[in-house]
Amino acid sequence: MDMKEQSLRTLLERRGVLRGAAMLGAGATMMHPLPVLAASSQSAAIRKAAEAGKAASIQRIRDWIALPSIAAENLNMAEGAAFMAELARDAGFTNVEIVPTDGHPGVFGTIDVGAPRTLGIYFMYDVKQFDPAEWSSPPLEGRMVERPGFGRAIMGRGAVNQKGPEAAFLAALHAIRAARAKLPVNIVLVCEGEEEIGSPHFRQIATKPNILAALRKCEGIFIPFASQGKTGNVTVNLGSKGIIELELIASGEKWGRGPKKDVHSSLKAMVDSPAWRLVQALQTLVTKDGNTPAIEGWFENVRPLTEREKELIRAAARAGDEAAQKQALGITHWIDNLAYDDALIRLAQEPTVNIEGLVAGYTGPGGKTILPGRAVAKLDLRLVPNQTRAEAEKKLRAHLDKHGFTDVEMNVSGGYDPTEVAEDSRLVRSELATYKRLGVATSLNPRMAGSWPGATFTAPPVSIPAAHFGIGHGSGAHAPDEYYLIDSTNPRVAGLVDATMGFAEFLYTLAAIR
Amino acid sequence: MDMKEQSLRTLLERRGVLRGAAMLGAGATMMHPLPVLAASSQSAAIRKAAEAGKAASIQRIRDWIALPSIAAENLNMAEGAAFMAELARDAGFTNVEIVPTDGHPGVFGTIDVGAPRTLGIYFMYDVKQFDPAEWSSPPLEGRMVERPGFGRAIMGRGAVNQKGPEAAFLAALHAIRAARAKLPVNIVLVCEGEEEIGSPHFRQIATKPNILAALRKCEGIFIPFASQGKTGNVTVNLGSKGIIELELIASGEKWGRGPKKDVHSSLKAMVDSPAWRLVQALQTLVTKDGNTPAIEGWFENVRPLTEREKELIRAAARAGDEAAQKQALGITHWIDNLAYDDALIRLAQEPTVNIEGLVAGYTGPGGKTILPGRAVAKLDLRLVPNQTRAEAEKKLRAHLDKHGFTDVEMNVSGGYDPTEVAEDSRLVRSELATYKRLGVATSLNPRMAGSWPGATFTAPPVSIPAAHFGIGHGSGAHAPDEYYLIDSTNPRVAGLVDATMGFAEFLYTLAAIR
Repeated sequence: MDMKEQSLRTLLERRGVLRGAAMLGAGATMMHPLPVLAASSQSAAIRKAAEAGKAASIQRIRDWIALPSIAAENLNMAEGAAFMAELARDAGFTNVEIVPTDGHPGVFGTIDVGAPRTLGIYFMYDVKQFDPAEWSSPPLEGRMVERPGFGRAIMGRGAVNQKGPEAAFLAALHAIRAARAKLPVNIVLVCEGEEEIGSPHFRQIATKPNILAALRKCEGIFIPFASQGKTGNVTVNLGSKGIIELELIASGEKWGRGPKKDVHSSLKAMVDSPAWRLVQALQTLVTKDGNTPAIEGWFENVRPLTEREKELIRAAARAGDEAAQKQALGITHWIDNLAYDDALIRLAQEPTVNIEGLVAGYTGPGGKTILPGRAVAKLDLRLVPNQTRAEAEKKLRAHLDKHGFTDVEMNVSGGYDPTEVAEDSRLVRSELATYKRLGVATSLNPRMAGSWPGATFTAPPVSIPAAHFGIGHGSGAHAPDEYYLIDSTNPRVAGLVDATMGFAEFLYTLAAIR
Repeated sequence: MDMKEQSLRTLLERRGVLRGAAMLGAGATMMHPLPVLAASSQSAAIRKAAEAGKAASIQRIRDWIALPSIAAENLNMAEGAAFMAELARDAGFTNVEIVPTDGHPGVFGTIDVGAPRTLGIYFMYDVKQFDPAEWSSPPLEGRMVERPGFGRAIMGRGAVNQKGPEAAFLAALHAIRAARAKLPVNIVLVCEGEEEIGSPHFRQIATKPNILAALRKCEGIFIPFASQGKTGNVTVNLGSKGIIELELIASGEKWGRGPKKDVHSSLKAMVDSPAWRLVQALQTLVTKDGNTPAIEGWFENVRPLTEREKELIRAAARAGDEAAQKQALGITHWIDNLAYDDALIRLAQEPTVNIEGLVAGYTGPGGKTILPGRAVAKLDLRLVPNQTRAEAEKKLRAHLDKHGFTDVEMNVSGGYDPTEVAEDSRLVRSELATYKRLGVATSLNPRMAGSWPGATFTAPPVSIPAAHFGIGHGSGAHAPDEYYLIDSTNPRVAGLVDATMGFAEFLYTLAAIR
């Protein structure tokens, strides 16, 4: 859903103190010859093809940015799926199909080169809502802008989340084909258009019989990602929290008390208030400080972090820049004034109940003397292993009912279970090996606080490892001025061509690793 | 502020069981000759002039509707004041001045005919916000529409609240002048443009030395009003609740915890939430059912209703149509399942804390995974005698502070003290006598649950009775499809010309009463 947040990555970014390659010397160029590719004697040809294809690759990103698909607004969904299918065909996928769901369609395609191993790739073709007034550059134009400390970047909605990294992956396939090299692995591509609303129908796509059969053959699956910040170092995540997004709605209509529509506020003295009803229901969900879920039985299946997981986080805290992260977030204290390592452990460990938005009655400037007939809280609830989305939905409903709020409606718009991926899976080992060969320092993060639909892959019936992979840089997911780096001036950070070559390197590594 | 609500009037409307004239026989025409005016031998001439001036009077309302002044949006405020001043001059007021304030300007003028008695008239020239999409007729056009059970009405924002009744009052002055009759009383006119935002600067107008001196000479002051519903009966209110309108704001900025701007929602596990802060602060303000203020010391100065006041309300309940009122409001139960009489007593008796609106974070369709840096509740607090606005503000702040919410900001946008007016004042006696002479059944209501800036007049230094007066009908104040009746097809309800004559009758009654 949202694990690509720069704020999050900044927060988690740390030096490669735990694992991975030694840091590059200052001023070193990152992209020295790629060992596996070099060994395959095709490295130079593929890089040459990637360089030659760069302009087309940029244009691919720009054209894609110009077509925003926003599921929450039902905007360009059929068009976005058709465009996605065309991008897949163009990159060499065959049997490309648009996959209808009860919501918006997905896209599926394969490249079968008869290789022993198969890689799954997950794409999202949708983007988050945006308000052009907040942007310094028109969000659908994909203009080139300078980003100090990084270089020239393409700016637009979806640039980094997720069109830029996805297009860089496609560019790798184009380059391998243009270089007349043989793909070292088969590829299975599954795409959805509802990632930004919580992937409500993605399971329908992944479990369609022909798609399920294809996915089950994969060593694992990743979403193309721009994982580098200023230091160039990369965090490899071994899992992520789950999420439920929902609205809680109190209304006179359902309550049978209070008004069915807005009435004059003076009537409060004789008429019940759905807005107060919502406030009272909400405050039962968390402790008084608003920081810990108080929903009955919420922690029953929570698996505490292991000592190894905590140690990984403590090491990350030691290497991190707490002050810079606080400044970037505009905060002065972590919850309970925790020390940085304890705050990062809390970030990974704790399930949360967050208010995304509140809306009731009059919300414009000044006031308006009404008693609203309806009040809505938009919540997201982050889940940790071994909580499940189904369990959480059931427990939240039971909690509301037990506290007498049987009338408070709970409209779940989407969500995923938590995801975990084994450190010794071939997918994770290939990631670490590839980063090492690229000269990129890595560290392991036991669990991202963000969420993504990885559980669709890691849980039955698909049951394959799922992760993120990719070098390169971008920022501003879900925010104004989103961008993706094209021409890097930072020797530690990959631009578009190097990110493309990173994906190519991964394919050869996965094929070769034991 | 909002006492003109049709919903409220419908709720309080009742037959004249307690006081006032006998009901007219079915089918009787309401407007038989007006005794005082008739006695003055000028009645026929004034009515003839009012009839002759009807088209101009309608056009006056329509032109006024076409110029909406909305203080909350700083829309047409100078233009509205200038138009108001022109309306006053046109109706015969002299020394008309536009009165600057720290907010939007007021208007003042007088007509001094050397009469022994002087009447104050209060006007508002502003209107409530509106959304044309919700209207069945363009809200600034003042189109004529049929209202079943009433007749032909002019529809537009401000039609009944308060431009129609105010224009009808002006039409009475025009008619008296056109009939070459002598005004029986002197008139002092004070107008403001901030009534709909709680009259934050009206006191500056009323206490300007020349205006204060003029007001203190008045027998009392009224706001022109369209007080008739379907039965034609009128409730004379002996007071109204006070009000404070305010925003409570929780923010990372003021709190020193949580983010200063919106951040990614996954950070909830390590970052405090201003939205939860607001919810927790709010829930301390009321009892669990949301119905009774729980602010420390809130009831200290509350004067309980007297037995006579309760008996007036019980009689009203007996005469009222509870089922119709519940249906009109879209509710099935009063608070605590109270019986109708107890609900109406509660309506008059109890101070309230109402949520007008909630707004935080993402409020659009679907969800957005943010942790908002700021959350706002818009509240109105109704006050009863002998609470004061100043006391209430102080106690609310103290309550928040005592509960540890020193950071939660309290932005008061306006308010008034409660208003009370003596039953034996010449103003009230003239109202009752006029209604009686007009053949309109009346009842007394000890206290309106709505609010208006009457306390500016009733409290020192002005210290004169203040009320509402007027026959005629309209509905939809603060709502779409607001209208004011022009040509009545209901024999019990006054159209524009009869409403105009009602104001003329009042002037002669006030001059003649002992």
